[in-house]
Amino acid sequence: MVYFDNNATTPLGASALHAYKTALEQDWHNPSSPYRASARIRAILDRARSDLAKSFGFKKEELTFTSGATESNNAVFAHFGKKLKPKSICLLSPFEHSSVLESAKNWFKDRIHYLPSDDSGVVVLDGVEKILNEEDISLVSLMAANNETGILQPWQDMAGLCSSKGIHFHCDATQWIGKLAFEDFSLCTSFSASAHKFSGPKGMGWLASKEPIQMQIGGGQEGNLRGGTENIPGIISMLSAWQEVKSNIAVLNDQVSWRDQFEMDLMKAMPGVKILGSKAQRLWNTSLFVAPDYDNLSWVGKLDKIGFSVSTGSACSTNKIGYSSIASSMGLSKTESSRLIRVSSYFEQTQADWSNLAIAFGHAWEELQSEASRSSVISI
Amino acid sequence: MVYFDNNATTPLGASALHAYKTALEQDWHNPSSPYRASARIRAILDRARSDLAKSFGFKKEELTFTSGATESNNAVFAHFGKKLKPKSICLLSPFEHSSVLESAKNWFKDRIHYLPSDDSGVVVLDGVEKILNEEDISLVSLMAANNETGILQPWQDMAGLCSSKGIHFHCDATQWIGKLAFEDFSLCTSFSASAHKFSGPKGMGWLASKEPIQMQIGGGQEGNLRGGTENIPGIISMLSAWQEVKSNIAVLNDQVSWRDQFEMDLMKAMPGVKILGSKAQRLWNTSLFVAPDYDNLSWVGKLDKIGFSVSTGSACSTNKIGYSSIASSMGLSKTESSRLIRVSSYFEQTQADWSNLAIAFGHAWEELQSEASRSSVISI
Repeated sequence: MVYFDNNATTPLGASALHAYKTALEQDWHNPSSPYRASARIRAILDRARSDLAKSFGFKKEELTFTSGATESNNAVFAHFGKKLKPKSICLLSPFEHSSVLESAKNWFKDRIHYLPSDDSGVVVLDGVEKILNEEDISLVSLMAANNETGILQPWQDMAGLCSSKGIHFHCDATQWIGKLAFEDFSLCTSFSASAHKFSGPKGMGWLASKEPIQMQIGGGQEGNLRGGTENIPGIISMLSAWQEVKSNIAVLNDQVSWRDQFEMDLMKAMPGVKILGSKAQRLWNTSLFVAPDYDNLSWVGKLDKIGFSVSTGSACSTNKIGYSSIASSMGLSKTESSRLIRVSSYFEQTQADWSNLAIAFGHAWEELQSEASRSSVISI
Repeated sequence: MVYFDNNATTPLGASALHAYKTALEQDWHNPSSPYRASARIRAILDRARSDLAKSFGFKKEELTFTSGATESNNAVFAHFGKKLKPKSICLLSPFEHSSVLESAKNWFKDRIHYLPSDDSGVVVLDGVEKILNEEDISLVSLMAANNETGILQPWQDMAGLCSSKGIHFHCDATQWIGKLAFEDFSLCTSFSASAHKFSGPKGMGWLASKEPIQMQIGGGQEGNLRGGTENIPGIISMLSAWQEVKSNIAVLNDQVSWRDQFEMDLMKAMPGVKILGSKAQRLWNTSLFVAPDYDNLSWVGKLDKIGFSVSTGSACSTNKIGYSSIASSMGLSKTESSRLIRVSSYFEQTQADWSNLAIAFGHAWEELQSEASRSSVISI
């Protein structure tokens, strides 16, 4: 199988896998215990936190290890939601990940202001400064890169605007981290990431935040912000994945031409395909498109049999009937939304895999058309 | 090193280690994705949830996988804290784990009623029924076994009382699960556990609850109660640990005589040692005692050099200066509290290890006395 669903999750990279296996055997002591074996683990934990925080221009005490970005995003909204003043609002894009959107709705109810976007799917910052000046804003949240379209948002500019007003700017960086340059994250007040999106382990991520954000109470771990025995093997493996990924980001970025060629091939193979966000800057690895016909699960099933794993959109919305936030905010009809297909590469997919993927879509289309005509013959 | 700090954390068991390593390589797909590889993972997840829930007489949809008992305990208190009515209180024992105690204080503030206990350290249920009848009680929480003393609490009786009144009874079962019989947990409305306390992996645990308790918003995973991509390798490894442990619980329980013999040996080797909770029913693996002299870090350091890892109390309170909740609720002076030492065994420790541990304490005492007398000679 050739795997083209890396925005849903990535397989564990070779060094992260090796690191996890080794740490499961060797680095299991509780870092809070008082003997020498635990002092060694404490030092590993301290070093991991320091290395990771420094990558992003944060202080080590500003980085909290979490079970993933969903936990991190939830914590930010709970933090501001709990101390909400009567007129405070939060400002978001309409296509945030559900862990941001739903958390915002839970804590801010109807006091959410959505940022406008242009017809290419990019948030427009004209007029935002006025809102920041005039409204009582607790929190601004803008994702770095969209999980479904791959569209990049102007989070650096938004971070700058918020910083100048002293407003907390949170960035869900889950899809960006491990794919694009990472030096700018110190512009944010906080940002979140998940290891399993950059060939690290599942169940691991972080929240980096200049404002202390309480997550789990009790035990005093993670600078008193997140109680509970630390998952040291998970942390070691995540760091190992990060170290491997960060030195390869420039190379990965060059693969944008493979995706672009795929989209050209696809348009030739399936006239009528509609590629979303193609006018915007996007992640180099992602293509989201509306197939010219047939529902997306039929496409996924065909591709699966031909040997390719592709998705119907974000994994989080796969099992839900209806309308993803990206589909509605990009003005798709419900019928178009039911034909959405996402493909996303990472380390392991080659230029040949991309070429073969376009060919596979062509074959799938022929088969779907032929099946449809057979079934219409039968139904006559 | 002979490891006697299993209440802090356990090394990963052989089958859980093997299962984790295999799953990291093979079972990495996102269970929410729409192709066949993910359908296989979904089936694994469903089976794991079902097997674990059934062990405890819960339905599979009542079991939520979490990052550990601290998260689970926090979620229960947040759930009731958010919907608190003006006069509602919660009822707890004074020696709950800090993830319960501190969560309760955070959400219920001063509306916490502490259960009385007898001088052996066991909660007394006389008069509790009257409180349950007369007060507006949101939640009762009683741990199954204490992490520091190993004392068993009458949680089954408390569960029965709460059940008859329709009051939510939560049991922090972290130290019990994997050490004692587990058939009674269906008496509880909810209970929590951590895998790394029973030779499973870190970063994994669960909350089983008959009342749905929201944890993380967004994504719809875990029956909409905990968003975020599931840590399938962690879940597989935890299940593997649980399956190995549950069939060995009766055998482990027989090791109580090893601990009892250790305590007798210890009293001979160090007259004046004060064993806590010895009149109560305790976990078979735990001994908490006040050394006759010298602060506990001196003892830990000596034992460490001799070849034994022992603890000063719970790992969660190791790095905090002062007074653990168990010390204060058992009436220890601050000086006595500074001499607290905990030893806790599990699968790997043998009868000979326990015997040797008592001998090691004897040697440590001789060395500490001899060093003290040398330093007093020098100071003259």
